[in-house]
Amino acid sequence: MADKNIPYKIYLEENEMPLNWYNVRADMKNKPAPLLNPGTHQPMTAEELGGVFCADLVAQELDNDTPYIPIPEEIRKFYKMYRPSPLVRAYCLEEKLGTPAKIYYKFEGNNTSGSHKLNSAIAQAYYAKKQGLKGVTTETGAGQWGTALSMACAYLGLDCKVYMVKVSYEQKPFRREVMRTYGASVTPSPSMETNVGRKILAEHPGTTGSLGCAISEAVEVAVSNPGYRYVLGSVLNQVLLHQSVIGLETKAAMDKYGVKPDLIIGCAGGGSNLGGLIAPFMGQKLRGEEDYRIIAVEPASCPSLTRGVFAYDFCDTGMVCPLAKMYTLGSDFIPAPNHAGGLRYHGMSPVLSQLYHDGLMEAVSVPQTKVFDAAELFARCEGILPAPESSHAIRVAIDEALKCKESGEEKTILFGLTGTGYFDMVAYEKYHDGKMDDYIPTDEELQSYFAKLPKVE
Amino acid sequence: MADKNIPYKIYLEENEMPLNWYNVRADMKNKPAPLLNPGTHQPMTAEELGGVFCADLVAQELDNDTPYIPIPEEIRKFYKMYRPSPLVRAYCLEEKLGTPAKIYYKFEGNNTSGSHKLNSAIAQAYYAKKQGLKGVTTETGAGQWGTALSMACAYLGLDCKVYMVKVSYEQKPFRREVMRTYGASVTPSPSMETNVGRKILAEHPGTTGSLGCAISEAVEVAVSNPGYRYVLGSVLNQVLLHQSVIGLETKAAMDKYGVKPDLIIGCAGGGSNLGGLIAPFMGQKLRGEEDYRIIAVEPASCPSLTRGVFAYDFCDTGMVCPLAKMYTLGSDFIPAPNHAGGLRYHGMSPVLSQLYHDGLMEAVSVPQTKVFDAAELFARCEGILPAPESSHAIRVAIDEALKCKESGEEKTILFGLTGTGYFDMVAYEKYHDGKMDDYIPTDEELQSYFAKLPKVE
Repeated sequence: MADKNIPYKIYLEENEMPLNWYNVRADMKNKPAPLLNPGTHQPMTAEELGGVFCADLVAQELDNDTPYIPIPEEIRKFYKMYRPSPLVRAYCLEEKLGTPAKIYYKFEGNNTSGSHKLNSAIAQAYYAKKQGLKGVTTETGAGQWGTALSMACAYLGLDCKVYMVKVSYEQKPFRREVMRTYGASVTPSPSMETNVGRKILAEHPGTTGSLGCAISEAVEVAVSNPGYRYVLGSVLNQVLLHQSVIGLETKAAMDKYGVKPDLIIGCAGGGSNLGGLIAPFMGQKLRGEEDYRIIAVEPASCPSLTRGVFAYDFCDTGMVCPLAKMYTLGSDFIPAPNHAGGLRYHGMSPVLSQLYHDGLMEAVSVPQTKVFDAAELFARCEGILPAPESSHAIRVAIDEALKCKESGEEKTILFGLTGTGYFDMVAYEKYHDGKMDDYIPTDEELQSYFAKLPKVE
Repeated sequence: MADKNIPYKIYLEENEMPLNWYNVRADMKNKPAPLLNPGTHQPMTAEELGGVFCADLVAQELDNDTPYIPIPEEIRKFYKMYRPSPLVRAYCLEEKLGTPAKIYYKFEGNNTSGSHKLNSAIAQAYYAKKQGLKGVTTETGAGQWGTALSMACAYLGLDCKVYMVKVSYEQKPFRREVMRTYGASVTPSPSMETNVGRKILAEHPGTTGSLGCAISEAVEVAVSNPGYRYVLGSVLNQVLLHQSVIGLETKAAMDKYGVKPDLIIGCAGGGSNLGGLIAPFMGQKLRGEEDYRIIAVEPASCPSLTRGVFAYDFCDTGMVCPLAKMYTLGSDFIPAPNHAGGLRYHGMSPVLSQLYHDGLMEAVSVPQTKVFDAAELFARCEGILPAPESSHAIRVAIDEALKCKESGEEKTILFGLTGTGYFDMVAYEKYHDGKMDDYIPTDEELQSYFAKLPKVE
């Protein structure tokens, strides 16, 4: 059943790797809404943002017009260490499912951070270095972003301070140790090191932390230490820009073999992986050149696109960050225990939120146990142990392939396999032991969070 | 300083992948000594071996003459899921060291087992399946081999029973959970399930187990259950044969770019990785076509080549396996705590032992802390978190590159990077906390073990 001309894995040659990132905002008719100052509710200026972010990254954040932005040579050099990532034809999965669908996945897990996060980490660290900074601060939940940033900082000789959600810090000591190997300092959040941390601990002494809270701490440390800036692994426009390297490589590899996807599927937490994977395809769709079905997959326990509201909201619990217009569940929404740590954020990238709002992509949510069913099936036939986050995309790719089996359609399905699950074995253990939590928030719960959204005219 | 024509990573095309394994024994003047029946001290016959191993694997084990053995199509299909593995030019490491040496490494860690072990696991599982068996048994120490075998068995639908050294079972619950994800049953060894396990537990109630003991249990279960055979991840001739795919790919990639290594370095536990990496190069050396310096690196705590004796010894603690002539520290040698679980075996592949004995390769031993110094340096500049085992090779590659820096020689250094360290963070943590154990056995200790070697005429 194998197409003879298409190898199991397509690797681009080094000289076929992208020289530019693609900025999908340039082709959007409705641009993402600007970030607002949380005090004045006025659009954040470059100057205001410059206190938190590096200057070059602020420029990228605000640039809604330039379609192609050159990837600096030093970043391309770093990319060559672990990219191009393979585009894999899932022959074994197709055979297992008995589907006429042709399934491809872009695998971003073949680097030590274990995910696509490294693509933006090196870019953000590079611009911080270029600006002559001493270091950067950030938060991490599951630990993939913190690991990626510590790798990038070690490579460039920058200091790296990571605030890690306390529950992850305690449950994932190995993640912490990898970051230490790369020379980062890792602090469990909330901590006593920051005003916002002390305040949260005073109000909620037993709290195990949240991503929103860790963001607040990292931002506070960045703005109060000369020579430091804050960096973020998802949600922001700049991050989607850097992650476009995923989609650009994918499209180049597919074009090389004359393949066009009918359906593009990605998991969505803050939106960085999905935004990156779909970027050039969405560009064609926005320009009216091609059409693709695009599906964002989120956990049923944290359904920002499928059940959230499109409104201005805080990006963090401490409410020190700018307001962003996005699909959100409310900045103090805490999802039920869910082992896809990277998909527990209350909001969604403003770019993806706008595209979804404009009907350019779809979204579905899936319960946790069904995600792990797909993960284990995939692991056994494709040989890769997927991260719980990535497995959301696998779930829907399998569902769509099974629909093709019923209908006999030979659709081409592309999905993003963002990372590996080596540090997620506690989750797999719960799955094997039948102890997954499939709790889904009620409408009443969600309404109570929506009621607390900031009022923006 | 980069050679413009050589990319960071060389991936062969699918159609350049090897069609045959290379059997280095065919070119050896002095063949490895035969396995002996532990009772009669006579060479094991194919019939005797067939009670423990699959028939096709017995044939491969005994075949000292056929240079090229075809890789069955189903195995080549599986290889395409995770191979070819990249041959990486370590530009960043070279730059960091400021060496004129050109450093290459063959990276075998980009698969879920995290190491090269999968190359032989799929071969052994395939022949078991072909013979119509129900399943296979094996032992695992650090867990890489057990993981690899469980992946291969899941793919082919074979039952897989793994006896895992108890200390690893308890310290590495995540490894166990990965094997469970692939459907294997994992039992801590010594266990009460076998005669040999019960005997060892009666004699040493508090024992945390050893590889030699787990081998005895796995062999007992294989021979006493119809439809089962035993498989082993290293040491055996057949395993080195399967692992030759590493060296064949490496050589094809180097030939493609006109590169010839001066120096080939690999870590050596049972010898499977090193034997595989050097196979085609050693073949040229044996045939007098080319010369290469080849260095085996072992831990100072378990120095079978550098301080062991070349003699017939038991392969396992329970003394149920055949005797092999090899460099050995004695079958009940227990190394000091050493986090390179894959390098704690008391013996060495008979093939490599013979080659070393004949002066065709060198060996050095390195202390644990210096290995982790190299591991961390490598992780920070090459972006890959190496397994402790692999880091032995990194240590010596760096040392040789630094010698080139002093002498100004532009040597080409090739080493095997066998795997990743994601499941070894406890070891990294000890290293960061300054708690490594660098104990080296005394001559008196070693002599006490040598005195207990079996007497073979």
